Amino acid sequence: MSWDINQAIKDVDEALERLIPAEDTFPQEIHRAVRYSVFAGGKRLRPLLTLAAAEIFGVPRLHALPAACAIEMVHTYSLIHDDLPALDDDDYRRGRLSNHKVFGDAMAILAGDSLLTLAFETLAAEATAYFAPATVVRLTEALGKAAGMSGMIGGQVVDLLSEGKQVNAATLDYIHRHKTGALFTCCIKSGAIMGGASLEEMQRLTVFAQNIGLAFQIVDDILDITGDEAALGKKTGADQNRQKATYPALYGLKQAEEKARDLLSAAEKEMEYFGDAGKSLLFLAKKLVEREK
Amino acid sequence: MSWDINQAIKDVDEALERLIPAEDTFPQEIHRAVRYSVFAGGKRLRPLLTLAAAEIFGVPRLHALPAACAIEMVHTYSLIHDDLPALDDDDYRRGRLSNHKVFGDAMAILAGDSLLTLAFETLAAEATAYFAPATVVRLTEALGKAAGMSGMIGGQVVDLLSEGKQVNAATLDYIHRHKTGALFTCCIKSGAIMGGASLEEMQRLTVFAQNIGLAFQIVDDILDITGDEAALGKKTGADQNRQKATYPALYGLKQAEEKARDLLSAAEKEMEYFGDAGKSLLFLAKKLVEREK
Repeated sequence: MSWDINQAIKDVDEALERLIPAEDTFPQEIHRAVRYSVFAGGKRLRPLLTLAAAEIFGVPRLHALPAACAIEMVHTYSLIHDDLPALDDDDYRRGRLSNHKVFGDAMAILAGDSLLTLAFETLAAEATAYFAPATVVRLTEALGKAAGMSGMIGGQVVDLLSEGKQVNAATLDYIHRHKTGALFTCCIKSGAIMGGASLEEMQRLTVFAQNIGLAFQIVDDILDITGDEAALGKKTGADQNRQKATYPALYGLKQAEEKARDLLSAAEKEMEYFGDAGKSLLFLAKKLVEREK
Repeated sequence: MSWDINQAIKDVDEALERLIPAEDTFPQEIHRAVRYSVFAGGKRLRPLLTLAAAEIFGVPRLHALPAACAIEMVHTYSLIHDDLPALDDDDYRRGRLSNHKVFGDAMAILAGDSLLTLAFETLAAEATAYFAPATVVRLTEALGKAAGMSGMIGGQVVDLLSEGKQVNAATLDYIHRHKTGALFTCCIKSGAIMGGASLEEMQRLTVFAQNIGLAFQIVDDILDITGDEAALGKKTGADQNRQKATYPALYGLKQAEEKARDLLSAAEKEMEYFGDAGKSLLFLAKKLVEREK
């Protein structure tokens, strides 16, 4: 079974186009800065996971798009802020100048803030058209928890504090599970919330998402060592230069690859429960983990 | 009629204490940074306005506190980010070192992000205990709109772009109505949403809030010229040094004072409609506009 990834990306892009104010909206500078990063050729992994998870429960794509886009907005804000000189100080992102290199640090900070705010506004103003208010509230809470101090930001903080230090396995695990894992899990959880999943379905999907999220991050770290700069659209070796804690740095390349494979198998096993309905999500998840860029 | 402002502040502080994770929550650094700014002796104007507006409709204070605190979180995040070197570059806030001077720019950016995220999570996770999900969704949408590009951030952007430039009355009006006004209006609107206000009540309260918000900002600008540094807890003359667009700079001190008084009278007139029920909110609004620090 395959899944038309290109069509799904197109649907996400069109929805984002509609949800984010046009460049000529006053004050134009902030809308230009926001759009620069949202439409920077991102792979839309998180919205795709959200759509695929929602499809397990027969949620029409149109209905799942606002939540999928809200998560992409949160992801994009986190990249803009991560790239700032005060944080990772990255001049390039996806082969283009990073947001602050084009619009300045002030506008980049505000562009990130804008996207984080718009994500929640999108849930409240747009997902409401298709779901009961109680469902929208659950989506909002899930996104808040995943993005906040007990989720993505927590991971970001520990990552920041670990730079240049020897980290142990528990710390590395915390960073991965929070910095990338929390939002990944939120995608799949959001799909399940929209689909009215049972407790058992929710639990299985959460385990699936955690495994895939961790596997994805490990592959990301591996590609930073073995990947092709042109294909990745960013400099490789960045983690090593910055003495970042990574899976391959701690366990070696071979064991890291093995760990990613094990996580994928565990995720696959979890998805068996959903039979044919889960095939799209599994197909997508395998694509993510087996990617070469 | 008076209103026990000190008791209301105490209630807000206690609610914030409960809503924001303790300092010893892992990772401690971010929780310390967040708490440093939230508990920095802020006057809690916005939550007080929210509580007073909700009380017009008989909403119990306990029920209105999560929304009131969510708005204070958004306000605090905006101060943390505003003070950053890339933005206003302020070393002091309320007589203490600003967040980034204590915790560094990276942690200050993340502390702001955390508070913005926690604001929305608080509405979804806490206001839900007292209000129908549809009401929580309306609160979320109102906060998103007020805080985002078409609200507070929009005002911040125009303010930033206007520094060192001659601005006209329309631009100054835009900055004030958005940078401060949008969140002020959101406070009173949120109270009305929680109270199930009618359309007419909502419209009157919105006009009231817009007038008070603008008057408050004009007074703020006046105090930056005439105020006492010790009482204000910050350096005066900062706007002038930075060539910021302000009401007194554009119209002169005397006309600015007159404008603030006119706005307050117009607000008072709007509040007559609510009779005795509106007295607390009016009392509070007058306090804000007639303050000396």
